[in-house]
Amino acid sequence: MHLGMIGLGKMGANMRQRLINAGLQVTGYDRNPEVSDVPSLQELVSALPSPRIVWVMVPAGAPTDSVIGELKSLLSAGDLVIDGGNTRFSDDERHAADLAENGIRFVDCGVSGGVWGLKNGYGLMAGGESSDIEELMPIFDALRPEGERARSFVHVGDVGAGHYAKMVHNGIEYGIMQAYAEGYELLSAKSSIKDVPGTFTAWQEGTVIRSWLLDLVVAALEKDPELKDIAGYVDDSGEGRWTVEEAIANAVPMPVITAALFQRFASRQDDSPTNKMIAALRQHFGGHAVKRPTE
Amino acid sequence: MHLGMIGLGKMGANMRQRLINAGLQVTGYDRNPEVSDVPSLQELVSALPSPRIVWVMVPAGAPTDSVIGELKSLLSAGDLVIDGGNTRFSDDERHAADLAENGIRFVDCGVSGGVWGLKNGYGLMAGGESSDIEELMPIFDALRPEGERARSFVHVGDVGAGHYAKMVHNGIEYGIMQAYAEGYELLSAKSSIKDVPGTFTAWQEGTVIRSWLLDLVVAALEKDPELKDIAGYVDDSGEGRWTVEEAIANAVPMPVITAALFQRFASRQDDSPTNKMIAALRQHFGGHAVKRPTE
Amino acid sequence: MHLGMIGLGKMGANMRQRLINAGLQVTGYDRNPEVSDVPSLQELVSALPSPRIVWVMVPAGAPTDSVIGELKSLLSAGDLVIDGGNTRFSDDERHAADLAENGIRFVDCGVSGGVWGLKNGYGLMAGGESSDIEELMPIFDALRPEGERARSFVHVGDVGAGHYAKMVHNGIEYGIMQAYAEGYELLSAKSSIKDVPGTFTAWQEGTVIRSWLLDLVVAALEKDPELKDIAGYVDDSGEGRWTVEEAIANAVPMPVITAALFQRFASRQDDSPTNKMIAALRQHFGGHAVKRPTE
Amino acid sequence: MHLGMIGLGKMGANMRQRLINAGLQVTGYDRNPEVSDVPSLQELVSALPSPRIVWVMVPAGAPTDSVIGELKSLLSAGDLVIDGGNTRFSDDERHAADLAENGIRFVDCGVSGGVWGLKNGYGLMAGGESSDIEELMPIFDALRPEGERARSFVHVGDVGAGHYAKMVHNGIEYGIMQAYAEGYELLSAKSSIKDVPGTFTAWQEGTVIRSWLLDLVVAALEKDPELKDIAGYVDDSGEGRWTVEEAIANAVPMPVITAALFQRFASRQDDSPTNKMIAALRQHFGGHAVKRPTE
Repeated sequence: MHLGMIGLGKMGANMRQRLINAGLQVTGYDRNPEVSDVPSLQELVSALPSPRIVWVMVPAGAPTDSVIGELKSLLSAGDLVIDGGNTRFSDDERHAADLAENGIRFVDCGVSGGVWGLKNGYGLMAGGESSDIEELMPIFDALRPEGERARSFVHVGDVGAGHYAKMVHNGIEYGIMQAYAEGYELLSAKSSIKDVPGTFTAWQEGTVIRSWLLDLVVAALEKDPELKDIAGYVDDSGEGRWTVEEAIANAVPMPVITAALFQRFASRQDDSPTNKMIAALRQHFGGHAVKRPTE
Repeated sequence: MHLGMIGLGKMGANMRQRLINAGLQVTGYDRNPEVSDVPSLQELVSALPSPRIVWVMVPAGAPTDSVIGELKSLLSAGDLVIDGGNTRFSDDERHAADLAENGIRFVDCGVSGGVWGLKNGYGLMAGGESSDIEELMPIFDALRPEGERARSFVHVGDVGAGHYAKMVHNGIEYGIMQAYAEGYELLSAKSSIKDVPGTFTAWQEGTVIRSWLLDLVVAALEKDPELKDIAGYVDDSGEGRWTVEEAIANAVPMPVITAALFQRFASRQDDSPTNKMIAALRQHFGGHAVKRPTE
Repeated sequence: MHLGMIGLGKMGANMRQRLINAGLQVTGYDRNPEVSDVPSLQELVSALPSPRIVWVMVPAGAPTDSVIGELKSLLSAGDLVIDGGNTRFSDDERHAADLAENGIRFVDCGVSGGVWGLKNGYGLMAGGESSDIEELMPIFDALRPEGERARSFVHVGDVGAGHYAKMVHNGIEYGIMQAYAEGYELLSAKSSIKDVPGTFTAWQEGTVIRSWLLDLVVAALEKDPELKDIAGYVDDSGEGRWTVEEAIANAVPMPVITAALFQRFASRQDDSPTNKMIAALRQHFGGHAVKRPTE
Repeated sequence: MHLGMIGLGKMGANMRQRLINAGLQVTGYDRNPEVSDVPSLQELVSALPSPRIVWVMVPAGAPTDSVIGELKSLLSAGDLVIDGGNTRFSDDERHAADLAENGIRFVDCGVSGGVWGLKNGYGLMAGGESSDIEELMPIFDALRPEGERARSFVHVGDVGAGHYAKMVHNGIEYGIMQAYAEGYELLSAKSSIKDVPGTFTAWQEGTVIRSWLLDLVVAALEKDPELKDIAGYVDDSGEGRWTVEEAIANAVPMPVITAALFQRFASRQDDSPTNKMIAALRQHFGGHAVKRPTE
């Protein structure tokens, strides 16, 4: 099998490597010529056998929109595009319809595993036509961990369902990380706890809360036991926001995942207007002192 | 009627004045001789007619414990102590039992109104024996706003119930302030809102959310329309914590008041260990960049 | 001044009456012929002097879309439509652009006050061109409470800003109601509180948390002291959802208003899938007993 | 090594078995004579070599208090009691002081692993004197999973620290379970997700959120794919409450773990007073219909 991989960043380059390790043939394209196998999308397309299979692994939003727009004109009827990025599920239907105008097929695939996927394999959640998914199984089987397929791959539903499942996966991830982090903060605040890193380490086997993320907590604390070199500033790349938007759209109460999302928003504020207003109110009704911004 | 007032800070001094304005006689004592009417607690007690009535208005915790301990030895059987401070309800029973050993009566009274109480009158929530409360009604009627008694005074229950009601009052206050403050932050973040202070001002009449705290929001924004001179640092004096502790003890879900409490905790952190851990985890699984503390 | 009022439900009928009471002339139209002044929108338009002023007061979404679509063809260049319903701010720009194709002007106006507005006057938040707002001031002045204009009316910004402010107003309202309700639940759970309705009543004057919504809490408890005749089922009409969507879009942490929204979602569930899953997990790891749905 | 095990319920009986499997000698006592090795605590004590080692594995609170009280009089100076139950950390110091009056040593040990611990081994968190811990290592090593000791055992600090770490462990567990459960509810609410159990199954390998609790989610959904036989009623055994109490005491914001705790409280309410009040308020200001309890 020979496929194209567009986007050779942290994720795409590793996935290309894992596919090659499994015996597949991959031609990669990246805007950065230093890492690209071919000089242009046009040449990527020319290099592939027909029907062509192209895996898109570029940032969600405008970059993915742009690549899919180009592929619409470069590919031919019967070719197949997989979007493996973190695209909002609601964009998938639009992309699929757009490509379908030229007879090009579309599958979305949520990919989890981060920088560890090259070694461990990736968890995969796919959306699209069953026949398309079936055709792509050699690729999925190469990307996912060895062992029982059902434990690392799922055909979730029609186009968009794969990214939907990945979005929820990331929402859950927000909640789990926040749970460990709150526990870390409380243990760190308590002077009677003499060995915070050791406590997390001891949770890795036998306990109810053992997990891969816990292993990463331990790795982080091994490297920097008090996290002195890391500021409490947390970005978000959209999936958490979309998860809560979907909670709202479906009237699903989602207090934990939402709290984890808001924690990130707050982490990026120099000063909180909400807190300033509360401080101002306390001053006005109770004569409580306020701090000035420079204090 | 002639009573003693112990503690002549922001609250106590104003309350003494309001009582005097209403025609009552008040002898005040404060550790600070410059504001005190008498040089010692002993002389305060000597100045009062029997049975003596003493209103304690000092900070909750150790200061109140200390004053009540002194009064136990200075007062006589039949005298009556009112604790009007923000004492935790669970301390009231202890204080009452302690004073009762010498035949001294005890009433707790939550007082709301802040620095505006001198002018507007105070909202009062009392706990204790009905006969004791009855005896104190001239004091309560002088302190509360004119008009129908039931709108500003309640006998909530036995000793401790007054402070319990005041504690819940303050918990509700946390939630309301946070609600306005969140609305303020969103309006401030939205560039299409051309007049944030004017919007709050326009909510003062006719709307569902008009309130006294809203009037204070307006006053705060009149003074400093962008709250530039106020840091987002918010203290807490205990009632919010106790409210949530009681929510836990009684298995009452209390998401809003608790969120408002946690907002205050977070406002006082230079950097959040929780956020540092989440940033560390994202770095470990996704290779996401972290900020260093100095950035 | 003579204007048309479309939609004579709880809000529209009262507003027509308040405008008439103030000496304005109002022709009302409603799909229900029993309450309508004219038999059709066409006749409403014919009855009005030029340039016509039409206030739309129908449910947000499809009903408002439909009425505005009809008005586009019935009205003439220079006429002016006000949408006073609870339309999502993002729809306003679309409505304005649609009407502008025929030269028809558009103003959005958030209206607060509920069924009490007829008597008390309404709080108003308007968005649109300053010249249009100026022209409508006699209407706004008639609808709002007497007294200083700035306390019940604001021109918030361009088209959409009025509904945006009203949306935030309702989000704040969610938070405030939830704060009082949590306090109510805790007081009700505590056996030492002998008079829950009396406690709320006593908060109406002098306290920091006095408000119009508190007055309604008192009214509700006067009518039904234990709320025995009311099920804990709470609808939502959209503004709370939109507020949280905007919080997400603007990266504003909004824990209190969001918690209040989720509380409503949860109130409408017969059984919570989230809770079922947690019960299932406890059974699996700890052997804890689960309840069956029929228990 | 020969020790006593008091309490042969789900946890104690399995732990006795695991210790025996490892070659240790265990004499068990339970109030239920059918499962007890000896007829009385007195005979348990008589059966043990000196210095005696007794592991207490009974419910926290009164049962543990009672057993430790009895042991105080039955044991001798130099004997050693381990409390492996879910005792609140704040009780440990009291128990230790009580036993110390008779020269009896005390160690607390949080134990995680539930019904799976017999097979998998238990995660252990111990608090106490280093020399006592050292003496107990053969027991700890037998109970924990094979492999590197640091991954399943930690000496957290002085007496109480073991239970403190276990308390935080359980708080984290609350948050993680809620995160998965919220994801489950959203996926279940979305009709485009064709295979909810399959999606969770596919997260077991390769993904960022793989964990032992996720494996239990999968097991639960294999047994009952729509959780039809489980009611959304969730008990709590105290550790979540204590965790939040400690968050409050240490001014640590803990939104996720607290939300998970409140979810449990709410799951046990037939109807929510908070929701009833909100419904009542909406009726009063907006004329919104309410449901009656029988509807």
